[in-house]
Amino acid sequence: MTETSAPPVLSASIPAIVLVRPQMGENIGAAARAMWNFGLDHMRVVAPRDGWPNPSAVAMASGAGRLLDEAQHCTDLPSALADCDFTFATTARGRDLTKPVYSPEAAMKLAAEKIVSGQRVAVLFGPERAGLENEDIAQANAIVSVPVNPRFASLNLAQCVLLMSYEWMRAQGEVTHEVTEMAGTDWAKGAEIDHLARHYEDQLAEAGFFFPEHKTASMKLNLRNMWSRMPLTRADVQMLHGILRQMVRWKEKG
Amino acid sequence: MTETSAPPVLSASIPAIVLVRPQMGENIGAAARAMWNFGLDHMRVVAPRDGWPNPSAVAMASGAGRLLDEAQHCTDLPSALADCDFTFATTARGRDLTKPVYSPEAAMKLAAEKIVSGQRVAVLFGPERAGLENEDIAQANAIVSVPVNPRFASLNLAQCVLLMSYEWMRAQGEVTHEVTEMAGTDWAKGAEIDHLARHYEDQLAEAGFFFPEHKTASMKLNLRNMWSRMPLTRADVQMLHGILRQMVRWKEKG
Repeated sequence: MTETSAPPVLSASIPAIVLVRPQMGENIGAAARAMWNFGLDHMRVVAPRDGWPNPSAVAMASGAGRLLDEAQHCTDLPSALADCDFTFATTARGRDLTKPVYSPEAAMKLAAEKIVSGQRVAVLFGPERAGLENEDIAQANAIVSVPVNPRFASLNLAQCVLLMSYEWMRAQGEVTHEVTEMAGTDWAKGAEIDHLARHYEDQLAEAGFFFPEHKTASMKLNLRNMWSRMPLTRADVQMLHGILRQMVRWKEKG
Repeated sequence: MTETSAPPVLSASIPAIVLVRPQMGENIGAAARAMWNFGLDHMRVVAPRDGWPNPSAVAMASGAGRLLDEAQHCTDLPSALADCDFTFATTARGRDLTKPVYSPEAAMKLAAEKIVSGQRVAVLFGPERAGLENEDIAQANAIVSVPVNPRFASLNLAQCVLLMSYEWMRAQGEVTHEVTEMAGTDWAKGAEIDHLARHYEDQLAEAGFFFPEHKTASMKLNLRNMWSRMPLTRADVQMLHGILRQMVRWKEKG
């Protein structure tokens, strides 16, 4: 789970800001300041390039250093999302992935609604240079795309965190409490979706599903994207495990 | 009027971003980048501490250097506002001044309306440390106050410019499609979902999944419910058929 502390437990009241493979400590510190300006204080850092804790981040975070002290350091993305019900991935532009794409405003309104109904929400930000990889995005439920000038899209990490945090604060108070219909639903957590995805991946590999070989990677990505895009309950996940297990039993009976 | 060029003539289509007595060149350059990210390219600098042009600003503005080349350098605020019909002053919080106070969103919507009706609009930003003086604000028609965390209000100049520019772009209707709910996605039709459901039902029956018998009906219902609740694309449906077919092939190979 985390390297440095107990398993992450996400406050039910705010989204976690998850920095995936951040490079410069200064940017991590600036992101912490950007978050705290708008009342967000739950940060997770996944495989930061320069290790953790990071003195440059601390120096930059002045006034928001507590966020870094309390940040959860995770070795990989699945462990960072293990307790999350719904994950947004921020990208420079909507890519060719079959996931819903939200504006920052719509995304943070949705996040606020989900949080009110008891779900735990995470927002992913990629490394400074390249942004999130398709494999990262495959673990998210939806995409957030900031509408920038197509001739100059140069938002840095902290600016992107700033805009999302700003929209989070704006979404507060605008949340109507009508979104209770699915409240009480036992949604599958990130770790359960990840486990399901790996079960299918492994079993289908054994069954020869990923063929031809040069298509294996994209087939696996499509499958991951499908699982993460689906609003799966715990019962759904159990049923999907059960389906696969039964097919294996059936084969083994010959 | 300006020191270095002809009297400022503000484009009728966008607001001018007016930096009042900015201190660090880096912040001026970062403000230029923030503006251009959201399509604003009209900057005015009033009495910058380190003179004009400013090499540090140019170094920081990379990609948005044109905004600095074209920026209008004014010796005082009245000359910077000479051609403006309506001026917003940004402040950390609404002060005890008898002026309307707008949120960034409301301010940029109002700015867009005024510009459409042919008015010229400016937005003032104060020096990094102290912000705008009351004398500066006295020259504005309205105040813009960014709703920050009262326990940590540390937005820097470029961040403040970023948020206003972002709200400007949002006000343009360029972002009317708040939720691009996977526009163009090839959603599976009802008949295709039904076909998928029957494929699983039949094949899983053959594999002995529906057991014990008195639970068969409710298991089938759960499965149907799951398929119909999922936002499945045609590609998803094909993949789900493929998964099942491959498991059957695998069994038949023995």
